[in-house]
Amino acid sequence: MTALDPNTPVLSDIETPALVVDGTLLAANIERMAAAARRAGVALRPHAKTHKSPDIARRQLRVGAVGIACATIREAEDMIAAGIPDALITSPVVGGDKVRRLVELHRRSAVMLTVDHPSQVDDISAALGSNDMPLALLVDVDIGQARTGVTSAEECLALARHIQAAPRLRFVGLQGYAGHVQHIIAAQERRQAVHEAGAVLRACADRLKADGLAPTVISGSGTGASTFDLDGGCYTELQVGSYVFMDADYGRLRERDGAPLPYENALFVLATVISINRAGQVTVDAGTKALAVNGPPPDIIIGVPGGSSYTFAGDEHGTIRLPPSAAAPTLGSHVLIGATHCDPTVNLHDGYHVASGDGMLAYWPIVGRYRSTTPQAPLKRAAFPASR
Amino acid sequence: MTALDPNTPVLSDIETPALVVDGTLLAANIERMAAAARRAGVALRPHAKTHKSPDIARRQLRVGAVGIACATIREAEDMIAAGIPDALITSPVVGGDKVRRLVELHRRSAVMLTVDHPSQVDDISAALGSNDMPLALLVDVDIGQARTGVTSAEECLALARHIQAAPRLRFVGLQGYAGHVQHIIAAQERRQAVHEAGAVLRACADRLKADGLAPTVISGSGTGASTFDLDGGCYTELQVGSYVFMDADYGRLRERDGAPLPYENALFVLATVISINRAGQVTVDAGTKALAVNGPPPDIIIGVPGGSSYTFAGDEHGTIRLPPSAAAPTLGSHVLIGATHCDPTVNLHDGYHVASGDGMLAYWPIVGRYRSTTPQAPLKRAAFPASR
Repeated sequence: MTALDPNTPVLSDIETPALVVDGTLLAANIERMAAAARRAGVALRPHAKTHKSPDIARRQLRVGAVGIACATIREAEDMIAAGIPDALITSPVVGGDKVRRLVELHRRSAVMLTVDHPSQVDDISAALGSNDMPLALLVDVDIGQARTGVTSAEECLALARHIQAAPRLRFVGLQGYAGHVQHIIAAQERRQAVHEAGAVLRACADRLKADGLAPTVISGSGTGASTFDLDGGCYTELQVGSYVFMDADYGRLRERDGAPLPYENALFVLATVISINRAGQVTVDAGTKALAVNGPPPDIIIGVPGGSSYTFAGDEHGTIRLPPSAAAPTLGSHVLIGATHCDPTVNLHDGYHVASGDGMLAYWPIVGRYRSTTPQAPLKRAAFPASR
Repeated sequence: MTALDPNTPVLSDIETPALVVDGTLLAANIERMAAAARRAGVALRPHAKTHKSPDIARRQLRVGAVGIACATIREAEDMIAAGIPDALITSPVVGGDKVRRLVELHRRSAVMLTVDHPSQVDDISAALGSNDMPLALLVDVDIGQARTGVTSAEECLALARHIQAAPRLRFVGLQGYAGHVQHIIAAQERRQAVHEAGAVLRACADRLKADGLAPTVISGSGTGASTFDLDGGCYTELQVGSYVFMDADYGRLRERDGAPLPYENALFVLATVISINRAGQVTVDAGTKALAVNGPPPDIIIGVPGGSSYTFAGDEHGTIRLPPSAAAPTLGSHVLIGATHCDPTVNLHDGYHVASGDGMLAYWPIVGRYRSTTPQAPLKRAAFPASR
């Protein structure tokens, strides 16, 4: 549980709403996962889609991560531009000039990519020049989520061969992400689902091996599945993400012994009390544009009497209901609201205020959010339809 | 219904996911609301929280809007910096150095503010200098939403008097936003709720008038209530926002005659098909970080066979299920997905690609999103806890 006080002087001048990270808990989460991976002899490639922060990625690398995972080419570009040395893009890169940008990244830094279709392979091969080093590709395997990936061991083998045969490409292994099992609460049930998803990936690996194309890398997993993928799973590296901040949903998950996962909530939205005219309730300046709604309602609220509850009250507002006869926080005072779904909450902000127990504060920018550039090709001059 | 084709050449090079606006429908929506207001003799002060776009605000002003409404000081700052001449901030400005920033804005441009507590009034009065022009304030009245605002006519009068008595401030009127009535579908039921909310505001206005403080401005309403507030409501100006783009929820609302509101869906997310390995389904690169989830699921999907349906499949992915035996769109092709909740969808992007039927394209930036600056006061040097 965080020891942060929303009304500590060091947080008093921050423009709200704002993301605040408990730096002590963040560091502990990072170290705990790194230690578990070291013990298990499995590599960590933390997914940067959770935090979108080069500062956090750097700390993950410092304790032994082999690189990072990125969900989009934009994330990889921004991370590499900030000095992060190694990125795996975990989703097919298709359309526009993204393949050209991928090649540019490859010329500057270590980058790997997942593919799930021969035409993606052909496009990338064609975009590379004869002086380029071979680009490393993983075949994405659908292990039950039905989102991306090849859907059989035969398809997997065919695509791996296609990569090997294409100029300037190198087949290095497999990716399988079991998004559908990450949030299963009961340990035994989650373990079974992780096992079934892993079996699909193992069958692909075996088929490739029999054909002389044994995968060097098998990348995947997530915070929920990591309990089981850490010991005896099929992965050589784990793409865990949410553990750095945890969230309400992962907080409900249980380990084999019934204990919760060993990571603590470290991500909060700092908000200001802006209206106090109603009995038993105050209004704060954080709503659906500051806190993601696709999680349980926020239940950690610091700076108000115990038993208070938060309700979304529009894009820029939330209301906090106070327990009967509790003293209301004053106008202008701060509250910290625990983020219940971290990735999309992070995506609403442009940086973190990182606080540690001793009152220190840093600001870490968030990168890699969508910014859809105007195409490079010349455009016809915009002529907005006459509006009268 | 939009005539835009997601695979028209002019959209082909856009980095997806991206916001695309049908410029023809946007212009028609803007003109239609402006014409209705002209006929009714009511002023328009469109809410910029919907679009966060100086380009759209400028077009609203061009057809007669008296100014814009902003939800936050950040929105007002960015709008005024982009040349929009007049902004009402519709929520109390409390905390940090926001009052100082408000005063700076007031020195540069026409700005009005709502307040709901005497201490807000005192803070603003104290921050103004003796050379400053008086700053115009509205008293925010809670007309049923229980979010911000004074809660009785007596409180309203007391706060108006407090403003009048404070140095360098000017009481100009009232604001009442009936957020709770905007989305009532049936016309008769919505009309009744609008009437009840208006009655609270009228009672406040009458009380003030009896005391010689008749409000010059009564600001409020929204797209859903505008049907009734346009004819004979209590407002001198309407803060309508969503009508520029419409959204799925407002699309269900009915007018007195059973017709839908006369505005059309003009806002879409352009996405790319990135995986086609599963029968009857494709995967696109737009998920919960590209489309707001707090609305009905997207139901307008252009570029796929009729009868297709979209499902969120994570932060960066969506799956589109195709009707039986329909031809699947090809890898790399584009689809347009109608935004079902506009304001929070806009908030996920940094600009609009505006397309009109004749193939023209413009890029309009989105401003005023949260960016929590590091406080101006010097900080102790950040010392992130040692992570090993």
